[in-house]
Amino acid sequence: MVVSREASGQRSETVRRANLSTIVRELHLRGPLSRSDLVCSTGLTRGAIRGLIGELAAAGLVREERSARGGTPGRPSPLARPRHDRATVLALDIAVDSIGAALVGFGGCVIDHVRADRARGHFAATRITADLARLALPLVERHDARESLIGIGVAMVGVVRPDDGLVRLAPNLGWQDVPLGALLARRLNLDLPVMVANEADLGALAEQRRGAAVGVDDVLYLSGEVGVGGGLIVDGQPLIGAAGYAGEVGHLPVNPAGTTCRCGSIGCWETEVGERALLRRAGRPRASGRAAVDAVIAEAEAGSAGALAALSETGEWLGFGLAGLVNLFNPSLVVLGGVFGRMAPFVAHEVEEALDRRALRAPREVVRVVPTSLGPDATLIGASELAFEPFLVDPAAWLSPRARPLRLASA
Amino acid sequence: MVVSREASGQRSETVRRANLSTIVRELHLRGPLSRSDLVCSTGLTRGAIRGLIGELAAAGLVREERSARGGTPGRPSPLARPRHDRATVLALDIAVDSIGAALVGFGGCVIDHVRADRARGHFAATRITADLARLALPLVERHDARESLIGIGVAMVGVVRPDDGLVRLAPNLGWQDVPLGALLARRLNLDLPVMVANEADLGALAEQRRGAAVGVDDVLYLSGEVGVGGGLIVDGQPLIGAAGYAGEVGHLPVNPAGTTCRCGSIGCWETEVGERALLRRAGRPRASGRAAVDAVIAEAEAGSAGALAALSETGEWLGFGLAGLVNLFNPSLVVLGGVFGRMAPFVAHEVEEALDRRALRAPREVVRVVPTSLGPDATLIGASELAFEPFLVDPAAWLSPRARPLRLASA
Repeated sequence: MVVSREASGQRSETVRRANLSTIVRELHLRGPLSRSDLVCSTGLTRGAIRGLIGELAAAGLVREERSARGGTPGRPSPLARPRHDRATVLALDIAVDSIGAALVGFGGCVIDHVRADRARGHFAATRITADLARLALPLVERHDARESLIGIGVAMVGVVRPDDGLVRLAPNLGWQDVPLGALLARRLNLDLPVMVANEADLGALAEQRRGAAVGVDDVLYLSGEVGVGGGLIVDGQPLIGAAGYAGEVGHLPVNPAGTTCRCGSIGCWETEVGERALLRRAGRPRASGRAAVDAVIAEAEAGSAGALAALSETGEWLGFGLAGLVNLFNPSLVVLGGVFGRMAPFVAHEVEEALDRRALRAPREVVRVVPTSLGPDATLIGASELAFEPFLVDPAAWLSPRARPLRLASA
Repeated sequence: MVVSREASGQRSETVRRANLSTIVRELHLRGPLSRSDLVCSTGLTRGAIRGLIGELAAAGLVREERSARGGTPGRPSPLARPRHDRATVLALDIAVDSIGAALVGFGGCVIDHVRADRARGHFAATRITADLARLALPLVERHDARESLIGIGVAMVGVVRPDDGLVRLAPNLGWQDVPLGALLARRLNLDLPVMVANEADLGALAEQRRGAAVGVDDVLYLSGEVGVGGGLIVDGQPLIGAAGYAGEVGHLPVNPAGTTCRCGSIGCWETEVGERALLRRAGRPRASGRAAVDAVIAEAEAGSAGALAALSETGEWLGFGLAGLVNLFNPSLVVLGGVFGRMAPFVAHEVEEALDRRALRAPREVVRVVPTSLGPDATLIGASELAFEPFLVDPAAWLSPRARPLRLASA
């Protein structure tokens, strides 16, 4: 948050840009907001906010409306509403069983989205990027969004180098060192950078900005699919690591007597809490896929003892690893995403009990475990936030006539 | 780092304090420094630095000396040397087998230090604090340091709530919820706040400021004694967690078929890499203590197959857990402290091999594992840095005649 420093003279342009960023971020994450709301949440003066909102309105990014209800005495404070059709991003998702695309507008409005099943197995990156383009470009055309597009974000089930979107490892697709960002940029041909990140990191970002973890500074987001991903928010910031690879909780070694993991190691956590372990325990060692997992959950709902036992054992392993993560990170919130969110009612007891028994008392006392509140599209929402980020950091660059979205200025 | 913003008018006092903090921190961590060094490292103007150094010299905190060698053409830039006897802290350490105390001066100079063995076992906090006071107060008296003391920092082998120095759990001493900070403040009676932190967290801080991890932003410090502690630096900042308990790597569950841990859980990492496991493997199941561990290391140095095998197996477990931590945190440096530092030559091969085999390739590629460069007193150095921190953050408060170290101003 940036405080008003208009008095500081020579740096007024820097200050203006920082303040604009503050306002734009507030509107994006919490809008629509009245000027009074913005005074409260940013600490900027009413005059500064009037000027900045005026700039954004002139650029077509917000619409000012009479506030319906006064709230405080005196003149009603006009409401600034982000215009979602004036700045949009394309969010893409490469998951284990599906690919997805969404067109998301300023303010977080999901204008349109689509998801298509994909067969499991190893596919060339050119095939996947072609499929993604076929899914995504019609969204852009249908909503006439070419001019408003300001970024592209991709959620990827794998280990990703964030700097350039190189996929270091994606066992589900058989990828190693695939330059996904560059391939997608070429295939989409939208003249925009493509930012790629790990799907669990983006799930964590989505939960922090728009889900179960709003306002929480220390969060562990767990994403369960075939494997297990983790996204960590530490003191309000994503945990990145030295090269952007942090958070690979699925490859925490928990069982030296366990089975070989797809990563080559033995007894990684995902060998005990991933899809395969659940289906094996449920007596379906040859099954795979989301439908098979959901069938086990449906059986459990219907009272099947075998399904309940398989989920219970998986829950114990989930708690076993979580206890270690709670001891390591001392989070105040754990969000169960992906299949863990769907199985939450059947594993909550085991997880809580394992934490009571195995985590240290001090960090145990402060942690809550909840299912995702965003559902299966959490990662798409995270990908859209990734794509919006450069715009939120310096919206002035996007308003200037020399910058690329000249479009916005001329709108 | 704070940039020069002297032009900003009304906030010049805020700016002056921030700049003073920058200079004092630089001198503390890297001093003595010439004015030219400070211009380079802080981005402040030469004039600003002259003024700030003048203030510090007037307060007696630095001495300006003619620089011995010119370095650059032109007039030699005077050298500002921190005066270690004008601002001092007391650093204390409660370890498993010993207690320690050091008097440390501004600039990080260890003026004096002392360590005393203590018998293992459960002792009342009043006993330990009395022992510590008997160890520490003579240091203060001997160096006539009562007037220069500005803080007290304590390294504690246990889970500590940093806000108030409450020890939540210290299995080595049998403590649970012991208000160590308050007890020590009363016992020492030095009219100074006592800051307490976990010994591994302070080890990490020491390595980052003055040891193997200077200039490294993503660091895992491992401290091995009876148990295993961890201190993490993430993107340059200590990993704290929601309530200050993060980093309990010793209680990462790695072996569900393992033995019961002192924390009550089963198969925690420290049950496989802690002192007991090593001594058991070395055929000394009834031995304990630093001397017994060092005897095993000495035997290994002399070529004993049994000792080498015991160390090798411990090294494999060390690598097993480290692989998970590398996957989780993606650090660029792992520093082996405590007994792990002493056994490093005998476990390095196993650790590297386990990382090759078990860690994901991407984070594996960027991580180095090194022994501590600070030796057994790393935690005392960390405790001194903890105690100096409030002074580094706002030295102006300590120079003002109204603030507590009126002493400094009148020096």
